[in-house]
Amino acid sequence: MSLTNASPVDAARAAKSASHVLATLSADARNEALTAIHAGLTAARDDILAANARDLELAQQAAADGKLSSSLVARLDLGKKGKWDDMLQGILDVRDLEDPVGRVTLRTRLDDGLELERVTCPIGVLLIIFEARPEVIANIAALAIKSGNAAILKGGKESTESFVAISRVISAALEKTQVPNGAIQLVTTRDVIPELLALDEHIDLVIPRGSNDLVRYIKNNTRIPVLGHADGLCAIYLEQSADPSMAAEVIVDAKTSYPAVCNALETLLVQDSALTTVLPTVAEALAAKGVELRCDAASKKALEGTVPNLTIVDATEADYRTEFLSLTLAVKTVSSLSEAIEHINTHGSHHTDCILTASPEQAEQFMAAVDSAGVYWNASTRFADGTRYGFGTEVGISTNKIHSRGPVGLDGLMIYKYKLRGRGQVSAAYGAGEGKKNYLHQRLPLG
Amino acid sequence: MSLTNASPVDAARAAKSASHVLATLSADARNEALTAIHAGLTAARDDILAANARDLELAQQAAADGKLSSSLVARLDLGKKGKWDDMLQGILDVRDLEDPVGRVTLRTRLDDGLELERVTCPIGVLLIIFEARPEVIANIAALAIKSGNAAILKGGKESTESFVAISRVISAALEKTQVPNGAIQLVTTRDVIPELLALDEHIDLVIPRGSNDLVRYIKNNTRIPVLGHADGLCAIYLEQSADPSMAAEVIVDAKTSYPAVCNALETLLVQDSALTTVLPTVAEALAAKGVELRCDAASKKALEGTVPNLTIVDATEADYRTEFLSLTLAVKTVSSLSEAIEHINTHGSHHTDCILTASPEQAEQFMAAVDSAGVYWNASTRFADGTRYGFGTEVGISTNKIHSRGPVGLDGLMIYKYKLRGRGQVSAAYGAGEGKKNYLHQRLPLG
Repeated sequence: MSLTNASPVDAARAAKSASHVLATLSADARNEALTAIHAGLTAARDDILAANARDLELAQQAAADGKLSSSLVARLDLGKKGKWDDMLQGILDVRDLEDPVGRVTLRTRLDDGLELERVTCPIGVLLIIFEARPEVIANIAALAIKSGNAAILKGGKESTESFVAISRVISAALEKTQVPNGAIQLVTTRDVIPELLALDEHIDLVIPRGSNDLVRYIKNNTRIPVLGHADGLCAIYLEQSADPSMAAEVIVDAKTSYPAVCNALETLLVQDSALTTVLPTVAEALAAKGVELRCDAASKKALEGTVPNLTIVDATEADYRTEFLSLTLAVKTVSSLSEAIEHINTHGSHHTDCILTASPEQAEQFMAAVDSAGVYWNASTRFADGTRYGFGTEVGISTNKIHSRGPVGLDGLMIYKYKLRGRGQVSAAYGAGEGKKNYLHQRLPLG
Repeated sequence: MSLTNASPVDAARAAKSASHVLATLSADARNEALTAIHAGLTAARDDILAANARDLELAQQAAADGKLSSSLVARLDLGKKGKWDDMLQGILDVRDLEDPVGRVTLRTRLDDGLELERVTCPIGVLLIIFEARPEVIANIAALAIKSGNAAILKGGKESTESFVAISRVISAALEKTQVPNGAIQLVTTRDVIPELLALDEHIDLVIPRGSNDLVRYIKNNTRIPVLGHADGLCAIYLEQSADPSMAAEVIVDAKTSYPAVCNALETLLVQDSALTTVLPTVAEALAAKGVELRCDAASKKALEGTVPNLTIVDATEADYRTEFLSLTLAVKTVSSLSEAIEHINTHGSHHTDCILTASPEQAEQFMAAVDSAGVYWNASTRFADGTRYGFGTEVGISTNKIHSRGPVGLDGLMIYKYKLRGRGQVSAAYGAGEGKKNYLHQRLPLG
C-alpha cells in the first residue's frame, strides 16, 4: 500500500500496472498478504488507536463548534467496543472466502482442438470514495486483494490521521509479500476527486460509499462505470389473507429493528379488505414501538379510535416517496395486487419489497412483477444484506440494473475473459461455401 | 411497436411501463411475438423495399453531392443480395434461442423455511442509438422482446423511410400479441438524444452502435450505464517456438480476411529470436496478400531484401496505437514474453490478443496476464464474434470491464433479482446473543 502524494494520473497508472501483477498471483499469495496485514495491524494497535484519538479530538471540537454532526463523530471512533476486533476479524473472514478468481463459467468446443473457456478475473482498478469511517480502509484493502483488484482509496478528511497510520502499517506488511505496493493506494491530497474521475483509461469502476448526493455527483462527473449504493425506499404489501400476528412481527422488524438503514420499511400498502381485519393488529404492534403512521383517508378511518396510543398523521403524496429513516411509516390503501405492484414500481427505489400473504399465487405474481433487487414473500426486508445472504461480506447494496444488483459480495468485483486455445485455426475456414467447415458449438463440462 | 412523436420523457415512461408487463410474459408469449413480426415483415416485403429505395435515392443524391460517404450508402441498401432474407432469418434464429429469462443461478437455504433464490430477469428499458443500417431495427426488436426488455430506438436519419415502414409493420404485428405496443418505440423526432440521455430514472442501459466518437459523446453526457462497442487494436505475439507455416496462416487470416472490422490484427509483436527464423515465412505470406508492414529497426533489418514484393515503411510510435482497418500492419520486436504482455496491456484496446507458440507454459502465462476480453493461443483474432462463440447472435463486442465483456449475446441484456420466500421470519431473531438463531447458509441444487 502506498500513501501517495503522487498526482492522480501517476497514482492511477501505478495502480493499473500493479493490477496486472495482482491478476496473475495465486490465491495463496493473495491470502498470505491478508494474513500479513492482519498481523501488522494487530501489532500496531496502540499507534493506530492513538492516531484515531487525535482525529476524534479534532472532530469533537468541530462538533462542539457546530461544524460536524455528532453521528459522524461516533462513526470515527475506532476505540468503540468491538470495532477494532471486528475490523481485524473481517480481514480473516475475507481471506477465508472461496477464491473468486479463475472460475470457469463456460466451456465450448468450437471445433476439434479449438476450445473456448470463459474464466472469471478481476476488473482491474477500483476507485473507492468513502466518508470518515476509518475501518473501511482495512475492509476495502482486504476485499481488493482477495479479488485481485488494485484500489485507489480516497477517504473523508476527518479520519486522515487514522487512515495514514493504518496505511503505513498495511504498506509495511505488503513489503514482505508478492502483492505490489502500488496495488492499494491511499490518496491524501485534497480536491483530487474531479481529476480521478477523468481517468477512465486507468480506472475501471468507481464505488462511492456515502450519501446520495455523493453518488449523484460522481455519476454526473465521470465516464467510468459507478457501482451505486443507493437509498432504500422499501415497501410491504399487506394482502388480506396474511396472518395478522405474522404480519405484525415482520412489519415491526422491518420498520423498527434499525430504522436508519436502507433495508428498513418506509411504505406499508394495505389491501382495502385487510383494513379492519389485519391492519389493526399490525398497528397495535407498531404503536407499542412508538411508530407514527402517515395514513391515507381509508386507513385512517379504519384505525382511528381502535388502537390506543397510536399517532396518526394525514399522509401527503410526498410521504409515499420519502425515506424517513426514522420511526415514521407511510400507509396507503390499495384495492388489488396489481395496484400494489404499480405503486411499488413507480414510487419505490427498486431495493427490496415484500408481500405478506397466505396465497402462493399472489406471492409468485408479486415477485415476478416487482422490479426490485429483492422481492420477498413473508420475510422482513431487513434480510437484504450480504452477510445474511451468505456472501461473507458485502461491498454495498446496488440498485443498479447492470453488473451487480442487491447485496454485492466479492462476485461484484469480478468480470471474465474468454480464453481460446487452438492449433492454428483460421476464421476463413468456417462458414457457408464449398470446402468450408461448420462450428461444433459443443457445450463441455466445467470441471 | 410505436412510432412515436411523443416527448422523450413520455416515450421513456411508456417504455418503462411496458417493460413491467414484458418482464412477466411467458417465453411462449415472447416467442409468438417474434413469429408475428416475421410473418408481418414477410408479407410487407414490397412496401418496405419501396420505402428503402426512396431512402437510397436521396442518399445517392447526397453522395453525388459529396455530403455522404458511399460506404454509408451501401449499408443503407436493404435490397442487396441476401440482406432481406438474413434479416428475416435472424428474427427466427433469435426466437429459437434458449430462454434467458427466469434461470435460477443461486439457491441458498438461509434457515428452515427461508430460501433465497437468484433468478435472471430483464434489465428493463434499453436505449439503442444506431446509424443508418435499416435491418438493425428488426434485429434489435427481436433481441429486446426475446430478452424481455423494452427498447427505445433512435436511428440515423438517412434510413428514416425504411425505419418508419418497418416499424409500422412491427407495430401492427404486435397488436395481435401479448407484447404491449410501448415495448418497442422508434423515436423519429430530431435532436432528442440529449434529452433521452438525461432520463436515467426510466432508461437502464444505453447501447450505442456506431463510431467511437458517438460512444464517447454518449459516455460524456449521461448517468445511464453505457454498453460500449469500442474499436479493436488487436495484437499477435509471435514467439520463437511457433510453427512458421501455422503462424503465417493465422496472421494472414487475422490481418486480411476482413481488415475493416474490430477483431482484425493491427500489431504484430515478434520475439527477437524469431526475427530470422519465423518472421520471414509470415512476411512472405503477408506480401502475397498486399499487406504493407510498418517495421521497427530490428524487424526491418531482418526482412529487408529477403522477401520479394514486400513493402516496408519505418514505423513511428503512433503506429503502435493505430487501428489501421486496412492492409497495413505495425511490426515491433520484443525481447521476451513479459515485454510483449506489457506492450499489449499499455498500447492495446483490451479487445482480443493472441500468442503463437508451441509452449503451453508461455501460452498460459500470456492468457493469464494479458488484460483483454479475448486471450488466444494459436488461433486467429477473427474468432472474436458472438456467432462464432456459439451465442447465436450478438449485441456487439464490449471492451467494458463490468457487466459484459467480449462478444455480448442475450446474456448481456439480463440482470437478476433475489427472491426470498419465508414463513414470517424476522431479522432480529438471528445473530449473536442469547436465544438468537444462526443462519444455515446451505447451498441448494439449482434444479
